[in-house]
Amino acid sequence: MRFTSEQRLDDGVIEREFTLGEIPGTLWTPGSAPAPLVLMAHNNGLPKAEPRLVARARYTAARGYAVATIDAAGCGDRPRSAADEQARADLRRAMQVGEPVDEILESFIGPLVENAVLEWQTTLDALLELPEIGGPVGYSGGWAALGIRLAVVEPRIAAAGFFAGGYVPRAQREEARQVTIPLLFLLQWDDEGNPRQRALDLFDAFGSKEKTLHANPGGHTGTPWFELEDGCRFLDRHLK
Amino acid sequence: MRFTSEQRLDDGVIEREFTLGEIPGTLWTPGSAPAPLVLMAHNNGLPKAEPRLVARARYTAARGYAVATIDAAGCGDRPRSAADEQARADLRRAMQVGEPVDEILESFIGPLVENAVLEWQTTLDALLELPEIGGPVGYSGGWAALGIRLAVVEPRIAAAGFFAGGYVPRAQREEARQVTIPLLFLLQWDDEGNPRQRALDLFDAFGSKEKTLHANPGGHTGTPWFELEDGCRFLDRHLK
Repeated sequence: MRFTSEQRLDDGVIEREFTLGEIPGTLWTPGSAPAPLVLMAHNNGLPKAEPRLVARARYTAARGYAVATIDAAGCGDRPRSAADEQARADLRRAMQVGEPVDEILESFIGPLVENAVLEWQTTLDALLELPEIGGPVGYSGGWAALGIRLAVVEPRIAAAGFFAGGYVPRAQREEARQVTIPLLFLLQWDDEGNPRQRALDLFDAFGSKEKTLHANPGGHTGTPWFELEDGCRFLDRHLK
Repeated sequence: MRFTSEQRLDDGVIEREFTLGEIPGTLWTPGSAPAPLVLMAHNNGLPKAEPRLVARARYTAARGYAVATIDAAGCGDRPRSAADEQARADLRRAMQVGEPVDEILESFIGPLVENAVLEWQTTLDALLELPEIGGPVGYSGGWAALGIRLAVVEPRIAAAGFFAGGYVPRAQREEARQVTIPLLFLLQWDDEGNPRQRALDLFDAFGSKEKTLHANPGGHTGTPWFELEDGCRFLDRHLK
């Protein structure tokens, strides 16, 4: 893990860019050390520099967490293939016009999840070597399929917050019942890109004894600010 | 309004029993005055002395709210008729064995809601005369039908928390879209006595721009403790 830049923010949070082999990432750490770690992933296709993710990460770090994110293969600063770009465009278009997306989910997103899990585990190994990181690990992210797979295969993850779980490949829908860690499941009630019933079915399927659904009206990007605070309080209950 | 007993609790909260005409009630006030008021109603049929309600009321008062509850007609310390007792028993039995309850809801609960709204409004008038109460008014309660009707007819109520809204008479289901104040809607995902889909449909129907659904696994009385804290934070956002 090689740090390539460092910036101290107003609230004492340090924001550092890093690379780990081919993987570019960002790490936010609070002044106080060592802090519990939150892996913050994004909806597939978006860069780690996306302003909403950065705002969530900075807020969470200011609340006493180390927060890390990475660009998934083919996203953000990483090289992308024409085939991947085409598949992403197909998926976006199908979601926008309300066409079935299950085939693209299976053929395109499925393998991406497998690869992303390996990269996040590599990143986790490296992060846990840092002296400023300690304690249990949480997941917080918009990529529900990745979060489910990570929660199943990665025993170091103690709690997870998921967002927008309407479209998840069959493999992850099926292994949802193997997830047993505490969950906070965030749903935008009128999210045009995430069918409500599928998200409710996924919430129902999780095997966790403690799982909480928070639903609010509005579309995909309309999550109210207080859910950010609620999300941190969920992490506080399980990681602090 | 006549106070008949007074008890000072450990955390500085004062708990007083009162009567207002035929209505017996309890008022909890925090040390600091004047405090915003929370009307805390119960599932129809239960007494105001029910331990879960008392625990919620004391917690909420310790968080800086004046909290009031009353016994509904035919409940708790109030005289009851054989016909009402029979109707309550029929309703409980039908819910336990999963029989349709709509007819009992309409014929029995419907008129009770009308009467309870008048009594709560009378109580509200009297409470707002007290110097230790000031600021906006909230509703928090398990009797969703009462809360809906109050939210529609009573402009002094600025925010409401509802619990277990599966069984609500048709009149209140229909006027749910007239409710426009901020709502927190609490659902027990496996509540044997409150059909999940009906509760989700009710949440969907509310006209409020700010409405949040919190769902947790388990039966009717299994609400996790952190929802009590979340409920107070919801009130904090709208009443303080």
